[in-house]
Amino acid sequence: MTPELLRELLTLVRSGELDVDAALERLRTFPYEIMEDATLDHHRALRQGFPEVIMGEGKEAGQISRIIEHMAANGANVLVTRVAPEKARQVLLDYPAMEHNPKSRTLTLVHREISINGRGTILVISAGTSDIPVAEEALVTARMMGNHTEHLYDVGVAGLHRLLSQHHKILEASVLVVVAGMEGALPSVVGGLVARPVIAVPTSVGYGTSLNGLAALLGMLNSCAAGVTVVNIDNGFGAGYAASLINRL
Amino acid sequence: MTPELLRELLTLVRSGELDVDAALERLRTFPYEIMEDATLDHHRALRQGFPEVIMGEGKEAGQISRIIEHMAANGANVLVTRVAPEKARQVLLDYPAMEHNPKSRTLTLVHREISINGRGTILVISAGTSDIPVAEEALVTARMMGNHTEHLYDVGVAGLHRLLSQHHKILEASVLVVVAGMEGALPSVVGGLVARPVIAVPTSVGYGTSLNGLAALLGMLNSCAAGVTVVNIDNGFGAGYAASLINRL
Amino acid sequence: MTPELLRELLTLVRSGELDVDAALERLRTFPYEIMEDATLDHHRALRQGFPEVIMGEGKEAGQISRIIEHMAANGANVLVTRVAPEKARQVLLDYPAMEHNPKSRTLTLVHREISINGRGTILVISAGTSDIPVAEEALVTARMMGNHTEHLYDVGVAGLHRLLSQHHKILEASVLVVVAGMEGALPSVVGGLVARPVIAVPTSVGYGTSLNGLAALLGMLNSCAAGVTVVNIDNGFGAGYAASLINRL
Amino acid sequence: MTPELLRELLTLVRSGELDVDAALERLRTFPYEIMEDATLDHHRALRQGFPEVIMGEGKEAGQISRIIEHMAANGANVLVTRVAPEKARQVLLDYPAMEHNPKSRTLTLVHREISINGRGTILVISAGTSDIPVAEEALVTARMMGNHTEHLYDVGVAGLHRLLSQHHKILEASVLVVVAGMEGALPSVVGGLVARPVIAVPTSVGYGTSLNGLAALLGMLNSCAAGVTVVNIDNGFGAGYAASLINRL
Amino acid sequence: MTPELLRELLTLVRSGELDVDAALERLRTFPYEIMEDATLDHHRALRQGFPEVIMGEGKEAGQISRIIEHMAANGANVLVTRVAPEKARQVLLDYPAMEHNPKSRTLTLVHREISINGRGTILVISAGTSDIPVAEEALVTARMMGNHTEHLYDVGVAGLHRLLSQHHKILEASVLVVVAGMEGALPSVVGGLVARPVIAVPTSVGYGTSLNGLAALLGMLNSCAAGVTVVNIDNGFGAGYAASLINRL
Amino acid sequence: MTPELLRELLTLVRSGELDVDAALERLRTFPYEIMEDATLDHHRALRQGFPEVIMGEGKEAGQISRIIEHMAANGANVLVTRVAPEKARQVLLDYPAMEHNPKSRTLTLVHREISINGRGTILVISAGTSDIPVAEEALVTARMMGNHTEHLYDVGVAGLHRLLSQHHKILEASVLVVVAGMEGALPSVVGGLVARPVIAVPTSVGYGTSLNGLAALLGMLNSCAAGVTVVNIDNGFGAGYAASLINRL
Amino acid sequence: MTPELLRELLTLVRSGELDVDAALERLRTFPYEIMEDATLDHHRALRQGFPEVIMGEGKEAGQISRIIEHMAANGANVLVTRVAPEKARQVLLDYPAMEHNPKSRTLTLVHREISINGRGTILVISAGTSDIPVAEEALVTARMMGNHTEHLYDVGVAGLHRLLSQHHKILEASVLVVVAGMEGALPSVVGGLVARPVIAVPTSVGYGTSLNGLAALLGMLNSCAAGVTVVNIDNGFGAGYAASLINRL
Amino acid sequence: MTPELLRELLTLVRSGELDVDAALERLRTFPYEIMEDATLDHHRALRQGFPEVIMGEGKEAGQISRIIEHMAANGANVLVTRVAPEKARQVLLDYPAMEHNPKSRTLTLVHREISINGRGTILVISAGTSDIPVAEEALVTARMMGNHTEHLYDVGVAGLHRLLSQHHKILEASVLVVVAGMEGALPSVVGGLVARPVIAVPTSVGYGTSLNGLAALLGMLNSCAAGVTVVNIDNGFGAGYAASLINRL
Repeated sequence: MTPELLRELLTLVRSGELDVDAALERLRTFPYEIMEDATLDHHRALRQGFPEVIMGEGKEAGQISRIIEHMAANGANVLVTRVAPEKARQVLLDYPAMEHNPKSRTLTLVHREISINGRGTILVISAGTSDIPVAEEALVTARMMGNHTEHLYDVGVAGLHRLLSQHHKILEASVLVVVAGMEGALPSVVGGLVARPVIAVPTSVGYGTSLNGLAALLGMLNSCAAGVTVVNIDNGFGAGYAASLINRL
Repeated sequence: MTPELLRELLTLVRSGELDVDAALERLRTFPYEIMEDATLDHHRALRQGFPEVIMGEGKEAGQISRIIEHMAANGANVLVTRVAPEKARQVLLDYPAMEHNPKSRTLTLVHREISINGRGTILVISAGTSDIPVAEEALVTARMMGNHTEHLYDVGVAGLHRLLSQHHKILEASVLVVVAGMEGALPSVVGGLVARPVIAVPTSVGYGTSLNGLAALLGMLNSCAAGVTVVNIDNGFGAGYAASLINRL
Repeated sequence: MTPELLRELLTLVRSGELDVDAALERLRTFPYEIMEDATLDHHRALRQGFPEVIMGEGKEAGQISRIIEHMAANGANVLVTRVAPEKARQVLLDYPAMEHNPKSRTLTLVHREISINGRGTILVISAGTSDIPVAEEALVTARMMGNHTEHLYDVGVAGLHRLLSQHHKILEASVLVVVAGMEGALPSVVGGLVARPVIAVPTSVGYGTSLNGLAALLGMLNSCAAGVTVVNIDNGFGAGYAASLINRL
Repeated sequence: MTPELLRELLTLVRSGELDVDAALERLRTFPYEIMEDATLDHHRALRQGFPEVIMGEGKEAGQISRIIEHMAANGANVLVTRVAPEKARQVLLDYPAMEHNPKSRTLTLVHREISINGRGTILVISAGTSDIPVAEEALVTARMMGNHTEHLYDVGVAGLHRLLSQHHKILEASVLVVVAGMEGALPSVVGGLVARPVIAVPTSVGYGTSLNGLAALLGMLNSCAAGVTVVNIDNGFGAGYAASLINRL
Repeated sequence: MTPELLRELLTLVRSGELDVDAALERLRTFPYEIMEDATLDHHRALRQGFPEVIMGEGKEAGQISRIIEHMAANGANVLVTRVAPEKARQVLLDYPAMEHNPKSRTLTLVHREISINGRGTILVISAGTSDIPVAEEALVTARMMGNHTEHLYDVGVAGLHRLLSQHHKILEASVLVVVAGMEGALPSVVGGLVARPVIAVPTSVGYGTSLNGLAALLGMLNSCAAGVTVVNIDNGFGAGYAASLINRL
Repeated sequence: MTPELLRELLTLVRSGELDVDAALERLRTFPYEIMEDATLDHHRALRQGFPEVIMGEGKEAGQISRIIEHMAANGANVLVTRVAPEKARQVLLDYPAMEHNPKSRTLTLVHREISINGRGTILVISAGTSDIPVAEEALVTARMMGNHTEHLYDVGVAGLHRLLSQHHKILEASVLVVVAGMEGALPSVVGGLVARPVIAVPTSVGYGTSLNGLAALLGMLNSCAAGVTVVNIDNGFGAGYAASLINRL
Repeated sequence: MTPELLRELLTLVRSGELDVDAALERLRTFPYEIMEDATLDHHRALRQGFPEVIMGEGKEAGQISRIIEHMAANGANVLVTRVAPEKARQVLLDYPAMEHNPKSRTLTLVHREISINGRGTILVISAGTSDIPVAEEALVTARMMGNHTEHLYDVGVAGLHRLLSQHHKILEASVLVVVAGMEGALPSVVGGLVARPVIAVPTSVGYGTSLNGLAALLGMLNSCAAGVTVVNIDNGFGAGYAASLINRL
Repeated sequence: MTPELLRELLTLVRSGELDVDAALERLRTFPYEIMEDATLDHHRALRQGFPEVIMGEGKEAGQISRIIEHMAANGANVLVTRVAPEKARQVLLDYPAMEHNPKSRTLTLVHREISINGRGTILVISAGTSDIPVAEEALVTARMMGNHTEHLYDVGVAGLHRLLSQHHKILEASVLVVVAGMEGALPSVVGGLVARPVIAVPTSVGYGTSLNGLAALLGMLNSCAAGVTVVNIDNGFGAGYAASLINRL
């Protein structure tokens, strides 16, 4: 139940095209809907103006399909994140119209064309090749939320000229999402180059003392570049979401 | 060396009021200046359009004074953070015009009136009374960066009506900084209420398993409310700075 | 050997319906029984008045079956927790009368009807859909211990109205078990709404800095709501058990 | 604003002894009151029926006194916890009628006689001599909440007969608070002896790998005795509070 | 190359039954032998008078067989620890005379009868059923080192009478190995009952905050019973070895 | 109440030199004695045959003195460990006959001559100069428990010849206590040289990643030399006590 | 693009054998090349004079092959590290000329003979048999970088004579790489024997408190032997690379 | 006892200027000397050719003075590290000729002119002003070991042009010591710029999640720039020492 959908419905009621009982029926599950396993927060989509989102990890394919069914009934666009390949395959059997992006591990259902509501460009930067899946999750999220996006991959700090030669791209972005594993130093360098909000995403890329991404996380939280904020390890979705909130201001 | 100062200087050169040699002399230490103990990054102020900032912790009073001297020579406003009371007292002997705020542990020097460049209001919320010093650091920072600010204190999640009764204030903010120690749950609740960027600041308030703020930090990084980003423990400055970058977009 | 069984046996002896030798034989393994791999504490069931419980994890199917055999010899009801699907399947071959609940990962054997000895209702609340297995383990345990139960699922703090709209259900409970992963904030909010004991159960739901449930655990231990007590990560059984002890007072 | 006070006030209004305006004035700050540094939750005392509580740590003496002033205005009993000796001395200058208990680090103000509303006895057990301050905090809390209490000190598991010889005292309690540092094994042993709720309180007593109480905490969370729940390290107040909620059922 | 073997060899030389060249040949690899992947310390067996030991984990079956070959050439008894079932199966193809104990995950080769050199009995106690594999590793080790052994299983602290009823067995032992997971409290209780050396072995049994045995380890290191010493998590071999050194004094 | 004292008392009763009432009076507090703050375990001294021990840390000087008073009433020797200098000074005012050893931070009271009951020599080795206080605590403990002792200081592994040149001393000991901070490697080297029990004591000596002794502790728990057992960080007392139990076998 | 290749190319241009356009074409991707998934830093090979290196872990076989293709186009030697067996098999299908070393988990492509540029010998020492794979990774790396190498395996500190008997080999090396798991003590002992740079490599060999190599890492960082520096857990490549930089000085 | 001193002595013996007995007397304490509290390793100075070094932390002023006395008797230069100001003051009373450097917390005694034996320049770089004390410790150490040194301070990654503008200085060094706290990113950037050994020193500069330097340490261990090796937190001495070993090759 997005703001657009609600506005349409109320307009139809006002114009007499939809009678009150029919409207009530469609609003029956508003603002939330109690399913057996889940309590859907349709109001959140309204409060925040974004598509419905389902965290795929920890849910079975059947649960995901049932939740999509309830969401799709409202005509909303849907984004499912952290879907393992086999689980995605099963959900696609129920919803062949969904698009599966194996790199970002997302499923997307676009009922209504996504209108651009972000004012600038969100730039997603990755330090290494192995960080790309998380970066892609951020990109898919930002696009589903209605933003122009750009990306810049494998430009870690051990080869600074790779980054510096793309200086113009960095300066043109309105919000930057910087994805890095291992020592997580890239957000500090990027944060020192721009006067824009930088959202740092640590990844679990690395081994040994990378501690599954804790080293990168700590590096980012201790960034000597002011203005860098951080999200959970591998949380490309969260970064894309926060960047969208900022870009929409 | 802020953008305003640089613009003035270049205008004077263009108009002939300042000759090239004099301009060069004033630009001599641009973009950075090597002191004995520090390498000042005057260009950062230019890149980012904010006053000069000194991290007071880990520096001696004499070092702080010497750095202020070099910065003040450029006519810039100055913010010193994390200054212990005794250290502040010593710096004030050198710079009596500075304002010392013991609650936020800051020293501020305002040479030029701060012009408002943030478009909305930055709201700083604290969960408890003991979190106020960190909240104040964020407030002072946001004001020095040219923003309108509001605050809401001691409205932690164990007494929800305290928070909910201020719902209007929360909805009106363009960026929110939420400061909390102990379990750090407040940003999740606030993040669920608004469609604006929320910057969460964990504090070291608590004891035992609060682990000096790590519990609050982990709570915030794992927030079930999308769009919450996090800064280092007790880093009110970083939160105020990031909020300013966002508000200025 | 539950109190009821012991009382029956002694009554039979007193009435002469059972002679002393036969009674002795039945009490032979009381209060504990040494098997090859285990030392059964039949007296615990007597001390605490609850059915026999077997922790399934770390035991092989054969070991579980052998222990059930010794317990069932006493006519006691039996609860097996943390049984993986394949292991459950093997035990069911030996005890087809057992009920297998795959969601809660439990096996239950009900020889004698469970009498209600709890005075109020135990309410089990989960923050998300993925927390349901642990919540179900608490529910099954509480029911096996003789309590009325209710549940409320997927009402996490990022969508407060889902929780607040069920305020009456929360106020009516005599003991509350609150199950949450990620930041584990729900027990603080619930604990602030009621004047009843709240038992918080952290789950391993989450990723990255959730640290397999440590983040939720720390959040709960640092709850700003007084009266919240905590059990081990994913320990739905322990929470259901403690809630039963409290409800039976 | 306790339930009793509110009942009195409403009774006076009904009987005409108090006119509506006067009642309104007295209810003016209900359910909460915004001070400069704090937002008092007077409704919590009403919701939960307990005296007002102030966490002394992290607040200055002046802040504590100002909060007491607002609370005392309602005629409520007041408990201040975790007050360092010097801070207590300063508050006592403002409120000489308060009682200072240096062992439990509490200040208490008893305006109205405490009525017993707990049905059984709360027994507080400590493993060692050094754990007594935390045990005393639990005792003072339980008494302020209207309970009969008993205690048993220095009966750690390395000398079992000290504990076992007090078996009767342990069996007679309706709720048990067990306080232990170092390896924190005592709650497991006590939990195995009784069929009553056991609240375990780890303390920071120990050195080296006690990790300021983390070892005891982990021991308690992993207790092999079902029914043990745990609070934060050194949180005698929380344990006493939870025990009171349970005992009042 | 055990002391017995060396003594025999020297005796043969002295008596003229073995000429010097032949003796030299047999001592060729003494005190150590460089293989491609390993440097065998034959002198250790001599220094310490025990059979040769191979840590099976981290070695391939082929490597284990090659090392056994070199050791067996000296006529020594051999103990292989931490051998996974499949790996054991492969080694047994090379050495069908070895005995595989799947519970303790050991392979043993007894060329020469084991002579008893320990003066008292080593008692191995386990807290739970799941701790038995580690306990068995300690038992097998102690027996291979020439000790009389006894065991007592599943007598954890939540059912004290199970332990106390075996008090005599505990008092008769000369060295005690106490194996426990979860909270690891059993060594403290046992250590308080006896005046003999207690070696505590934490196991990785448990879940959540057991942290793979760290909770048990910390509990044991912080034991309030003096005289308890600790080995690595799941290190039944180390405990059996240390107990043998003590018992042989 | 040591075994010797109890034997004397019983002998006197048998011989008629002490009448039963007088004996009863002297046994009144046996096996334990409840003081206000402590429950003395006089039976432990009997069970284990050692002097009474008081852990000084976490107790006030007054508490220590009161406990000594009750212990000394039995004529027992007393050892107080971990006594800070100022606290020791206060206790000495009450018991001038006690000996204060500032290096080991102990107070000792020797009423009856210590008889040697250990059969061999306990050798205490320290890796560095800064580890000596912990080593001395082990030495004082072992001597109070009736053992011959030797020591070897500052022979860490970075200068192996310092250690190897004392090889004879190492081989002659019956039990070895090895004390080391930093990387804690010394017990592994010593354990490889001897066939005797080695008790490793990690110390908090070091900085940074020594993590207050955790690095040394982990090193010792992972020792590649079999037969090494470990006690808590800085626990010289525990090591001396365990060594005494072993040496007395 | 190694220095040799660049020199050749420039020489050809100077001599007229290669015209400028052709040279430009060959330099087109210099100093870096943007692929879809990676940004190759050809300049790094130039800056550092070493072959191209690909970290195999976290990349798919296809990605590795595509990167090799771009690198091989420049005629450079290529080293791929941390390649799992199955992934190696797939890459070998594309590049049958590569050499696969399963022990060190490397793939190597040698287009041009490796010239020796290191002045001394790099000696790689391992504490145990299970540490050999990491040691081999260091060896392969050092050889690919143009060094003479030696190795010494399974000479851990529990059997010192194994190490000391190879004293000459140790003294002859110009740089030493010391690889150890468990307690990680070997670098301290080696560092005390030589006056050469020692690079310590902790491995994840061990169990329980080895914490996947953290224990060894901490031991090495706290080494009492000055001059020891440390790399990440299992980072044989990094150690071999650093040793090569040192040896080339 | 440095190599120079030993050579002189032997030369005098050969030439007859020193008779054997006198030489023996001077060599009496060679290679080590047993003091009451310390075992001096005079041979290490010989093995490694460097001055004698005393770790000041954890030793009392008196102990330090006594050790200097024994070292100075050999005519060696002496370096004392980690000396707190008050302790330094006391040692200076005994050795007024020593030089106290409060910034690096060192005491140095130069009996014989330091000869340069390092072939290139050791460059010490610090990320911030607060890192300078650790950087100075590295510098003093490198100079005492006979090296030319340079430094570059406060050039952290958030203002890259400060670092890049000193590119020539960085390229000219033969060994680089890079000192950084907070996120510890500087060594990765520097390591990417040069083909020389980089020794990274994490510092405890920072707060909150800097975890007293652990964040910087982890960042450095996970550096994406190959060839970076790491020492303990705040271990400027170790870095200076290792750099000297490398530079002397």
